[in-house]
Amino acid sequence: MKHLFLAAVAATSFVLPAFAAEPAPVPSPGEIAAAAPAGDWVAIAPADLLVMDLAPDAKGRQRRVIIQLMPAPFSQGWIGNIRKLAAAHWWDGTSVNRVQDNYVAQWGDATEKKALPAGLATVPEVEYVNSDPASSQTSVDGKPAIRLSKDEAARRGEQIERAGKRDIFGGMSMADAYAPDVMFADGWPIGYSDAQVPDSRWPLHCYGAVGVGRNLSPDTGSGAELYAVIGHAPRHLDRNIAVVGRVISGIEHLSSLPRGTGALGFYEDAADRVAIISIRIATDLPAADRPRFEYLSTDSDSFARYADARANRRDPFFIRPAGGADICNIPVPVRPVAAK
Amino acid sequence: MKHLFLAAVAATSFVLPAFAAEPAPVPSPGEIAAAAPAGDWVAIAPADLLVMDLAPDAKGRQRRVIIQLMPAPFSQGWIGNIRKLAAAHWWDGTSVNRVQDNYVAQWGDATEKKALPAGLATVPEVEYVNSDPASSQTSVDGKPAIRLSKDEAARRGEQIERAGKRDIFGGMSMADAYAPDVMFADGWPIGYSDAQVPDSRWPLHCYGAVGVGRNLSPDTGSGAELYAVIGHAPRHLDRNIAVVGRVISGIEHLSSLPRGTGALGFYEDAADRVAIISIRIATDLPAADRPRFEYLSTDSDSFARYADARANRRDPFFIRPAGGADICNIPVPVRPVAAK
Repeated sequence: MKHLFLAAVAATSFVLPAFAAEPAPVPSPGEIAAAAPAGDWVAIAPADLLVMDLAPDAKGRQRRVIIQLMPAPFSQGWIGNIRKLAAAHWWDGTSVNRVQDNYVAQWGDATEKKALPAGLATVPEVEYVNSDPASSQTSVDGKPAIRLSKDEAARRGEQIERAGKRDIFGGMSMADAYAPDVMFADGWPIGYSDAQVPDSRWPLHCYGAVGVGRNLSPDTGSGAELYAVIGHAPRHLDRNIAVVGRVISGIEHLSSLPRGTGALGFYEDAADRVAIISIRIATDLPAADRPRFEYLSTDSDSFARYADARANRRDPFFIRPAGGADICNIPVPVRPVAAK
Repeated sequence: MKHLFLAAVAATSFVLPAFAAEPAPVPSPGEIAAAAPAGDWVAIAPADLLVMDLAPDAKGRQRRVIIQLMPAPFSQGWIGNIRKLAAAHWWDGTSVNRVQDNYVAQWGDATEKKALPAGLATVPEVEYVNSDPASSQTSVDGKPAIRLSKDEAARRGEQIERAGKRDIFGGMSMADAYAPDVMFADGWPIGYSDAQVPDSRWPLHCYGAVGVGRNLSPDTGSGAELYAVIGHAPRHLDRNIAVVGRVISGIEHLSSLPRGTGALGFYEDAADRVAIISIRIATDLPAADRPRFEYLSTDSDSFARYADARANRRDPFFIRPAGGADICNIPVPVRPVAAK
């Protein structure tokens, strides 16, 4: 009777004959992404996928969480550790130990006694931010490794305006209370500042972001204790904790877990912990079990239209476009690649 | 070993003798709120509490969700309907039918056939926004019903700056991509605009916000179908849907429910729906079962310090304060009042 968000109805109307002279429905952001040409999608290397298999749920259903690791130049010291921990099967038999509502689900060794593999790096705090002027010039396959959304927008001939501290991307506001500026680069939401430190950039704690648990400063964590954001983006953690990736599939296996009743959402009863069967880099899985994903290039015109539609919803349900969007409310579209 | 956020340790250090000449730990936002004097807390009238009792969980534990309804002048047409629906026991035997990850949990009549009680108002879309110039002058107990954070900050002699479209509240940024300006008024996060429509104000879709499901415009919903935000604030819904309240207790009973696998997160199997035993206004419950809550006055100096600490974390875990905060990342502290 009152189905909130009749997107299903709106989508249906695309495939029905238009008997009446109704205006064509404006596509939703999801429909824009789904209609993007194949060339706008970028394959994610299996070597950058971390696959976590939790114990089956109470009904015996599999629970697989897939994490995309961040590309260079961000957080590579911790990510190197994570690759070593996965190769050592270090997480097998550990558990999800903490689920705090509107915040994070965290996993690792609840006993706090399991020895770490040899050779893990100790990464300094300066690595929370990438401030290497050369990195934005780094060439990967002939393309710059970091592409600024404002540059890309300029390339497309769109008008770029700067109003005070607000960023205007293609005419929409991406005002941000945390970072001097924000952008999308290589498929990721990034904070940056041209002023504080030349060309400094850092990853953002949006929904699904995966970060490195740590002790008090100057400890920065090894990567053995990880968390995923399951609530409103805790952006105050930016530049205070290493972000190493994002959940691209199966976040519901973390976000719908019972909340812990101990301090900070830790489970008080060990029986409530959720066992981790294994965590592997996808390339270490049997070929038939290896997931494949792709993301919508944030340099593409499709993404620009998608982001604009997130900021200005014009699909039938909406009556008043916002004129802007929080960068964490513009999730980069990611989808599985069908097996051939 | 790597307990993310050692707030518990930091709190402990307050009660341990300071043997070493360490600087006193800076209190966390939660500690600032907890230390606020009794006079800074405002009792919530039981007539403004909506109490939803879900069927017990698989372990037989009670699941109570408590919602604070919005005060005048916001959304009162829908809230009047909600009071009538509760008085008619209309929701008893209905269910939570939709849980969409990082978005909403929604409840109401899954059959879509249950007759509504007589006398419900049909509320027009203009009521999504309050644009009555008189309402900001409305006096309640000799105080204006709407108090602007910038006015309150000015009253406290704090410096107020406006940098472009950013709002600076007590020296911190509350830059917002959705609303021209944001504020706290009477304990609620509010968007406003002095320019588009004089003195127009509207409630925000932050985590826990409760809104009114509706069909396509011009339908605005009756209030019989409600949802609670269980993910990153979907602020694009502001001014497109009526916000009628917020969950102040028990949100985990909604946010940790299994996600629906149908379109928009609706449960495909009716057996997955979560039965609602009853929804009542607290004044209609037996006195012994009547919850009592209070919120930290958003006009108080304690709240100003709390908000500043949310924007500039200086407690021991943090190494780099953000200098600002998303208004939805400054949840107004609410706590139960102990029985006398």
